[in-house]
Amino acid sequence: MDCKAFVDQQVAEIGAAVGEGTAINALSGGVDSSVVTVLAHRTLGDRLKTFFVDSALMREGEPQQTVKTFADMGIPVQLVDARKEFLAALKGLTDPEQKRQAVTDTFYKTVFGRLVKEIGAKHLLHGTILTDIEETVAGIKRQHNILAQIGIDPEETYGYAVLEPLKTLRKDGVREVARDLGLPDKIAERIPFPGPALATRIVGEVTEERLATVRTATTIVEEELADSGAFQYLAVLLNDRATGIRENRREFGQIIVVRCIDSTDARQASVVQLPWEKLDRICRRITQIEGVNRCLYDLTPKPPATIEYV
Amino acid sequence: MDCKAFVDQQVAEIGAAVGEGTAINALSGGVDSSVVTVLAHRTLGDRLKTFFVDSALMREGEPQQTVKTFADMGIPVQLVDARKEFLAALKGLTDPEQKRQAVTDTFYKTVFGRLVKEIGAKHLLHGTILTDIEETVAGIKRQHNILAQIGIDPEETYGYAVLEPLKTLRKDGVREVARDLGLPDKIAERIPFPGPALATRIVGEVTEERLATVRTATTIVEEELADSGAFQYLAVLLNDRATGIRENRREFGQIIVVRCIDSTDARQASVVQLPWEKLDRICRRITQIEGVNRCLYDLTPKPPATIEYV
Repeated sequence: MDCKAFVDQQVAEIGAAVGEGTAINALSGGVDSSVVTVLAHRTLGDRLKTFFVDSALMREGEPQQTVKTFADMGIPVQLVDARKEFLAALKGLTDPEQKRQAVTDTFYKTVFGRLVKEIGAKHLLHGTILTDIEETVAGIKRQHNILAQIGIDPEETYGYAVLEPLKTLRKDGVREVARDLGLPDKIAERIPFPGPALATRIVGEVTEERLATVRTATTIVEEELADSGAFQYLAVLLNDRATGIRENRREFGQIIVVRCIDSTDARQASVVQLPWEKLDRICRRITQIEGVNRCLYDLTPKPPATIEYV
Repeated sequence: MDCKAFVDQQVAEIGAAVGEGTAINALSGGVDSSVVTVLAHRTLGDRLKTFFVDSALMREGEPQQTVKTFADMGIPVQLVDARKEFLAALKGLTDPEQKRQAVTDTFYKTVFGRLVKEIGAKHLLHGTILTDIEETVAGIKRQHNILAQIGIDPEETYGYAVLEPLKTLRKDGVREVARDLGLPDKIAERIPFPGPALATRIVGEVTEERLATVRTATTIVEEELADSGAFQYLAVLLNDRATGIRENRREFGQIIVVRCIDSTDARQASVVQLPWEKLDRICRRITQIEGVNRCLYDLTPKPPATIEYV
């Protein structure tokens, strides 16, 4: 791919579409939304309004670190604290589809939809990539229509436009562009992290306490596997419990699953055959988390499993 | 250990205790109850009544194979079909302690207690080993009192006696005696299998359908790991489900955990570092079971995990 030509073309298209107007986008800190932010900021400067929504579902320190990384590049990002709204929307839900829907609705309709109206932006930038579109068409992911998601009916509200500058690229192409744009490695090489964030890694109800458990496990797995070269690695908190022994007494404990996969574009994935000393070390650290007494390694490729659990 | 002296002593003690009476025992097919059966049969001949209780919780073909193995050694074992009673007792239960209690009560009180009374035996032989006693004392296993379990109050029913000829041995000692007694390898070297059988390997409700799933997974794991030399290997069906993809569609599938451990006496256990080709092969076979789309490998030693899940 000729990255320079790609960047020039996207910058020109964004400029032509937005004209003298204002555009808005949500930054998650992942490579897709980061590249969109840099492309649009290059074109629009301070006519781009970028928001990071703290959903309570992010990893340890992620909201603050992402804002700082972009501040260091001269790109202002506004942090929106929506933790209470997400936790309230997820309360009592255990069905995976309902959980995903609650995160999507809270993100797009409640929080981002409100920001779009407050800012008065008529242009929304979105980090959709080719794999997202293909999986939506194939029925693997749910319908992907951001205007409907933020509560705007295109028929009634003529004038809103969604720009998807990465919709012809797969993940590897996005990383190439990210490197070409000079994004730091921690973003260009950042492992994928799903939109519904840690909610996809909790089987059963998402609560503050359970988020704290899976967040600690995630920190351990990311620390231990940072140099693995794998495409993605993650920790999942199951809802099931299993018996164990702590200080010579039966204990009914929680279970963490570790998953580490190789892939080029997330359409298919194979399990990484990690060294046993590494797996043993991860297990010892994971079972030191309060209430956790089992650590399992996921052996399943995609398909038949997906990468995430919810 | 001097096996011959041990066997002679136990045969003498059983003979002295039972005298001209009748004794009864339940055979599970495991090494402990098999050794007890052979010792007692050697002493008592047809004054020993041995029963195999088919609880619906056994592995594929296990009841019939066990009866045949003992018939081949000239020891008659009566097969008792109690499948409906166990399934009824387990219906609707999800709490691990309640499930174990239901299996124990159905086994001892309902089925074995009835047989004891029908036979009129005053002597019960039981395969308790030293580890069972130690874990009961330590509070890891529940109270272990077979007379109370079969509904006989020792105070009121003077005359009943429980004989536990293996109570000074650990698992490795029992295997030594088994080999010395000429028991076939498939029994002397048989991997441990818990009393509540497949009920300990189903997280959540035990139903015929879920038993069929974990039974198929158990057959696969036992076939694949028969030559592993491991102390114990097993398959567990979780109650949680995870997303997957089957024929390009989202599928909300079941999860099987594979566990393979080394141990001398089950008090402590370490995880066997199986070859990745073997794990991959097991995963491929497991995820061909209808409705199963994840296969996980348990990385946790005992402690902090136990060997079984329930």
